[in-house]
Amino acid sequence: MKNCIGKCPGLGIVLVGQRHDSHTFIRLKLRACHEVGIATFLKQLPEDCSQDEVYHVVSKLNDDPDVHGVIVQLPLPRHLNEDKVVEFVSPEKDVDGLHPLNIGMLAMGRDPFFIPCAPKACIELLLRQGIEITGSRVVVLGKSKISGLPISLLLQSHLATVSTLHAFTDNPEHVTRQADIVVSDVGNPNVVRGHWLKPGAIVIDMGATQVKDSSRQCGFRITGDVCYEEANKVVSAITPVPGGAGPVTISMLLSNTLESAKRAFRFG
Amino acid sequence: MKNCIGKCPGLGIVLVGQRHDSHTFIRLKLRACHEVGIATFLKQLPEDCSQDEVYHVVSKLNDDPDVHGVIVQLPLPRHLNEDKVVEFVSPEKDVDGLHPLNIGMLAMGRDPFFIPCAPKACIELLLRQGIEITGSRVVVLGKSKISGLPISLLLQSHLATVSTLHAFTDNPEHVTRQADIVVSDVGNPNVVRGHWLKPGAIVIDMGATQVKDSSRQCGFRITGDVCYEEANKVVSAITPVPGGAGPVTISMLLSNTLESAKRAFRFG
Repeated sequence: MKNCIGKCPGLGIVLVGQRHDSHTFIRLKLRACHEVGIATFLKQLPEDCSQDEVYHVVSKLNDDPDVHGVIVQLPLPRHLNEDKVVEFVSPEKDVDGLHPLNIGMLAMGRDPFFIPCAPKACIELLLRQGIEITGSRVVVLGKSKISGLPISLLLQSHLATVSTLHAFTDNPEHVTRQADIVVSDVGNPNVVRGHWLKPGAIVIDMGATQVKDSSRQCGFRITGDVCYEEANKVVSAITPVPGGAGPVTISMLLSNTLESAKRAFRFG
Repeated sequence: MKNCIGKCPGLGIVLVGQRHDSHTFIRLKLRACHEVGIATFLKQLPEDCSQDEVYHVVSKLNDDPDVHGVIVQLPLPRHLNEDKVVEFVSPEKDVDGLHPLNIGMLAMGRDPFFIPCAPKACIELLLRQGIEITGSRVVVLGKSKISGLPISLLLQSHLATVSTLHAFTDNPEHVTRQADIVVSDVGNPNVVRGHWLKPGAIVIDMGATQVKDSSRQCGFRITGDVCYEEANKVVSAITPVPGGAGPVTISMLLSNTLESAKRAFRFG
């Protein structure tokens, strides 16, 4: 890609430590970038690096004119202040859309620099299927900063009636059964059963948990939050795991990076 | 208050135009500040002022070390870009808590510089009544940037299960009837009827609409969103309008200003 640098979109990626799932996600993101011609700048730091070392790497990517998007693969090791690192990414290059300023704009129904990839993927999936969002009853299971929370915010700004459920919700199946659209981001394999769902509902499964599977060479498989076999008998559409919302989420990262590069080329 | 300046908390207030309700709100805020010993710096601008004139006034308040909080009374005249003005207030002095950065922090369950006054009032009312928020089912009617939206966000970060309803919600009474706590921020007098409410529910009425009343000398009265007489027979607690959530919201403005002054005195 070297000869494209400066002429093609560039994505800076910060990867700290040795988490297996983080390395898998980064490998998928790198492959996707290479497929579409986005230059990548991978910065790896050891598990025991300091907060300042992470700031230093992010800062260099923030300042690099060849880099149009900067992402920090989460979660970070526990000794690091993840919130502060996310806040350190320049909002104008925050293609993950997780900077508080971008989340705030999203919440307020204003145009953030970037919409986070998971909610953007949800909307894309719904719109491409021609599903009416305005006025629909949506249940979002989970309120993670990366996924559940911004999904609730984005669907709400698209005029859905959103209920956000979480670990402290009593009887979640009761509320879920009223929803036209269910988005699950719990990270608990098969927690959403068939009888939780209204007949004809639309289900987007954002869960992706590694579960042991001795029948596989790698020793595990990726499983979603929704019990697919049960749900599939009830709903009108459902995203599988793997191969559903995940790849679309990665596409949205590419889309955000491209958007940022276009802005830079236009104004740079 | 002059002799206190520099030693007491200071609130800068920007008031544009001649809206009757805005002037009423500002009068109440000024009176409350004077009662508790907060210095006020009221900057009035004419209805036809320019965006730059507003920026100029806000900027001077942002830079004034005697001013610890800056609020811009909303709504602004239509020719002004309200979002940009709100964003121009320094997040560290944004005692209304409406800057996107503060809203973003609130959404993410992190500590914003300030929690907006209306949601802070809701929480205060609930906590002082000893009402359990964690795990409760909450319906917030309305998703305004000033009130409904941040109320949903704050209650969610307090681990309530929140459903946010709005003009596009079909059959809002059905969802509302399931709620343990109902917060209404619609601005439509008496829209929430008694049969919308679950017996024993808690109701916080944030609505405050002027309706004509020829029996009053001023020609109007302030009416809430909830039909008080009907609701009062059903619920276990309800805030009246006027005299309910409104004064508590103003108290929260005082509380935020004091908090900001303490911070400034500590670090200044």
